[in-house]
Amino acid sequence: MTSANSVISSERVEGTTVYNVGGDKLGSIDDLMIDKVSGQVRYAVMEFGGFLGMGTDRYPIPWSMLRYDTSRDGYVVPLEKSQLEGAPRYGPDAVPDYDDAYRGSVDKYYGL
Amino acid sequence: MTSANSVISSERVEGTTVYNVGGDKLGSIDDLMIDKVSGQVRYAVMEFGGFLGMGTDRYPIPWSMLRYDTSRDGYVVPLEKSQLEGAPRYGPDAVPDYDDAYRGSVDKYYGL
Repeated sequence: MTSANSVISSERVEGTTVYNVGGDKLGSIDDLMIDKVSGQVRYAVMEFGGFLGMGTDRYPIPWSMLRYDTSRDGYVVPLEKSQLEGAPRYGPDAVPDYDDAYRGSVDKYYGL
Repeated sequence: MTSANSVISSERVEGTTVYNVGGDKLGSIDDLMIDKVSGQVRYAVMEFGGFLGMGTDRYPIPWSMLRYDTSRDGYVVPLEKSQLEGAPRYGPDAVPDYDDAYRGSVDKYYGL
């Protein structure tokens, strides 16, 4: 991934490192949930590998919470451990339907 | 893919069927090129498998040209054979940098 190029394959966004505001590596993006009409990414699904001892659960994070940091070539999310402990999550083989109710519950959790 | 759910995994958008305005199946989406800052899909990379005898070349199509058709659960593009014959394309193992110049050439080809 080159920082100079702002348009990249979805397959390359997946795997991009995610940091907290303090610069610690939290994990990586495992999947993108896209509005298939508008083509806007609505959620980045984060994998916090081993982080907090939470195994390989997937955490959907509203895209608007992500900031791209060109110096790190990664995303920064303003999330603290305490906010993730009760956050919506699911196992890698248990992807929920991202219907209105589920999206609403995720957005509400993060105060959106 | 369920029509009722407008938000789906990028991995499921890939593989979605693409039709022309007349309802003929043209091919499928092979990849999505995403603005990594805004999270907006900028190009759908189409694979026209065997269509027009063009083998497996990949055709980047500006996202704004795609319309999602819920009745078909696929995308419709207003493209005729004559427009594709000279369109920007590349082989599956020769993905170009989607830099300003390349994106400009694609957009210009389609009159955007």
